[in-house]
Amino acid sequence: MPVRYTPPKPSDLLPVPGVALGTAAAKIKGWHRDDLLLVVFEPGTVAAGVFTQNRFCAAPVHVCRRHLAQASGIRALVVNAGNANAGTGAPGIAAAETTCAAVASMLGCTLQQVLPFSTGVIMEPLPTVRLVAALPAARAALAPDHWFAAVSAIMTTDTVPKGASRRIDVDGVPVTVTGIAKGAGMIHPDMATMLSFIATDAPVAATVLAPLTREIADVSFNCATVDGDTSTNDSFVIAATGRAPLPPIERADDRRLAPLRAALAAVATELAQAIVRDGEGATKFMTIAVEGGRDAAECRRIALRIAHSPLVKTAFFASDPNLGRIVCAIGNAAPSDLDPSRVSFWLDDVLVVENGGRAASYGEADGQRVMKNDEITVRVALGRGRAASTVWTCDFSHDYVSINADYRS
Amino acid sequence: MPVRYTPPKPSDLLPVPGVALGTAAAKIKGWHRDDLLLVVFEPGTVAAGVFTQNRFCAAPVHVCRRHLAQASGIRALVVNAGNANAGTGAPGIAAAETTCAAVASMLGCTLQQVLPFSTGVIMEPLPTVRLVAALPAARAALAPDHWFAAVSAIMTTDTVPKGASRRIDVDGVPVTVTGIAKGAGMIHPDMATMLSFIATDAPVAATVLAPLTREIADVSFNCATVDGDTSTNDSFVIAATGRAPLPPIERADDRRLAPLRAALAAVATELAQAIVRDGEGATKFMTIAVEGGRDAAECRRIALRIAHSPLVKTAFFASDPNLGRIVCAIGNAAPSDLDPSRVSFWLDDVLVVENGGRAASYGEADGQRVMKNDEITVRVALGRGRAASTVWTCDFSHDYVSINADYRS
Repeated sequence: MPVRYTPPKPSDLLPVPGVALGTAAAKIKGWHRDDLLLVVFEPGTVAAGVFTQNRFCAAPVHVCRRHLAQASGIRALVVNAGNANAGTGAPGIAAAETTCAAVASMLGCTLQQVLPFSTGVIMEPLPTVRLVAALPAARAALAPDHWFAAVSAIMTTDTVPKGASRRIDVDGVPVTVTGIAKGAGMIHPDMATMLSFIATDAPVAATVLAPLTREIADVSFNCATVDGDTSTNDSFVIAATGRAPLPPIERADDRRLAPLRAALAAVATELAQAIVRDGEGATKFMTIAVEGGRDAAECRRIALRIAHSPLVKTAFFASDPNLGRIVCAIGNAAPSDLDPSRVSFWLDDVLVVENGGRAASYGEADGQRVMKNDEITVRVALGRGRAASTVWTCDFSHDYVSINADYRS
Repeated sequence: MPVRYTPPKPSDLLPVPGVALGTAAAKIKGWHRDDLLLVVFEPGTVAAGVFTQNRFCAAPVHVCRRHLAQASGIRALVVNAGNANAGTGAPGIAAAETTCAAVASMLGCTLQQVLPFSTGVIMEPLPTVRLVAALPAARAALAPDHWFAAVSAIMTTDTVPKGASRRIDVDGVPVTVTGIAKGAGMIHPDMATMLSFIATDAPVAATVLAPLTREIADVSFNCATVDGDTSTNDSFVIAATGRAPLPPIERADDRRLAPLRAALAAVATELAQAIVRDGEGATKFMTIAVEGGRDAAECRRIALRIAHSPLVKTAFFASDPNLGRIVCAIGNAAPSDLDPSRVSFWLDDVLVVENGGRAASYGEADGQRVMKNDEITVRVALGRGRAASTVWTCDFSHDYVSINADYRS
């Protein structure tokens, strides 16, 4: 069960004009459930994406990057769960292209207007024949209100489907932003994280959408980490169908971008936090906020070191205020000229460390009280500047080991 | 139980002329066992140490560094288990100095000739009064053949005491090297790792011993990692009593250093591997050997990323050849100009990945066969140069979570 996350009801995920979604069972991994998702956009839709920085990135990531660079406008996303098509070499690229070609011929668009995505086990051949055979069923199921079915079809170790919607007003015109995401393990921000797709009917030009997508990733998915492993398949795409009756947004300083940016960030942040709340085996959600650094990079390095320490994560799992482990993690990631005697940290409202040592006011019972919560903020003040950085993470439980020891069986 | 490690019998740990060891119960943490170790050296002993690079390094590490820089010769080590005296600010420094002063007054040497060490829980005040009160009992127990009792007294989550000895011949004179180490968690090499003390009666000058100690650390403890957390207290000290009837070794190119270097490296490597074999919850011992890199640093970065990946570690725990996780870890740590299509890796003798994809010869049954072993080598060939690096690590089990969730209770 995720930590304080209520998954959306199907009706919570608002249709976006110009977008239809359909799912089917391709039996990629022998599951008895839909595992194939087809998202179709009306002509004129533009898209931008950010992708994993993993050097062994999956075949569909290679193909996505190439198609996004070559295509003018995008017509479809094709997504399978159960097989990552990663570590598969040249046959993997061919499998992703074959999938795209089948979709393109079905929809009457170019190969480059189709973006492929895969998630699942790494280093097994993608069963392209079964996948392509299931495409007509997915097409037959296309409907604007199938966002919930769509995200359900791309789950792997996720325990709940994750989605969010916002409706905003731009110059008196209602604009919709709806997004979905999957991911629970192999989660560590490094540009984009896991699979997430957001669509809006706002008429955003491609030149504006690309930097906006990177910006949204930075404030949302790039702040989420479960286990420090950046997946080979991480992909985050925003598609703008332009169906809202508004003049096109063609400049980054267009004032109409403000409400849209806020809505996109809200949806992406909700999805990113949902992924952490549903992190493999998670029983606690932690916000690690590091402030008072010289630059955001050093704050982020320390926040991530705390978030990734198995010793810190198991202490949170045990609700044990063994907070010296946080001190240790700070010391491991800190710049060499950090003055430990200026460092303080808080667990929620409780001052634990002051001037580099245990705060005089701190008592074990205070730590114990906070550690019992299922949502906790660790705030670290470095006392050497004005920069800050925040990441979200979860604890490390017996279930994490069970889930990952048994994943393929 | 450690993985394929048979702890020494007391008689396996050879006395080193010029060294006596005594232990006592100081009840630092309320344990009913000896938890205080005093090591006394005869006058004329020189020592060198390498210490944690953690910026929140413990008070005794600060004091050790200062004393080693100031003292001419060393007379004693004083070590407690159960409390790390880390994250304790100025009172922690005072506690370490008080301990040294009590030893110095007892032995009639200077404060600077005593080196303090602590291991245990971080951020709790060191109970100096109890510690000092137990010193006379430790002194009364001093004996040259107490190495086994010594290492038993400094254990924390270690399940077995770790020690090793070698006797070598230098110009017809027998020379002894005996070392002990403790550590099982918060283990990640970053200069030195956990507590380890090695003594020899070889007459090595201080100017030769200091670089030799760093060199030995680099080929032994700095290749060991359990969980990627560098402790606040890591300390590794080599003491040379000079009791062997040999002219002093005063130059780094003295040919007599060769057998001594080999013996020190053998003892340190055995201790470092013993720490990994006894890693918290370990059921498997893995050697991660990365070769074919442009430089050792990039090989080491990749080896450590594989060693630290919780997904890789849980797959080994489950004996599940889910080897895509190794591909993912390589991709996360690889330099940006790595060509994945030149990468291969082997699990023991089994070629798993060739030219960046699954090897044609690889079958699941082959991976399964190797994964069942409790000692496994992962060999990665990057295909871009001649450099290499090796690290040793262990798997990630339910017991790791249990041990670290319950550590303080």
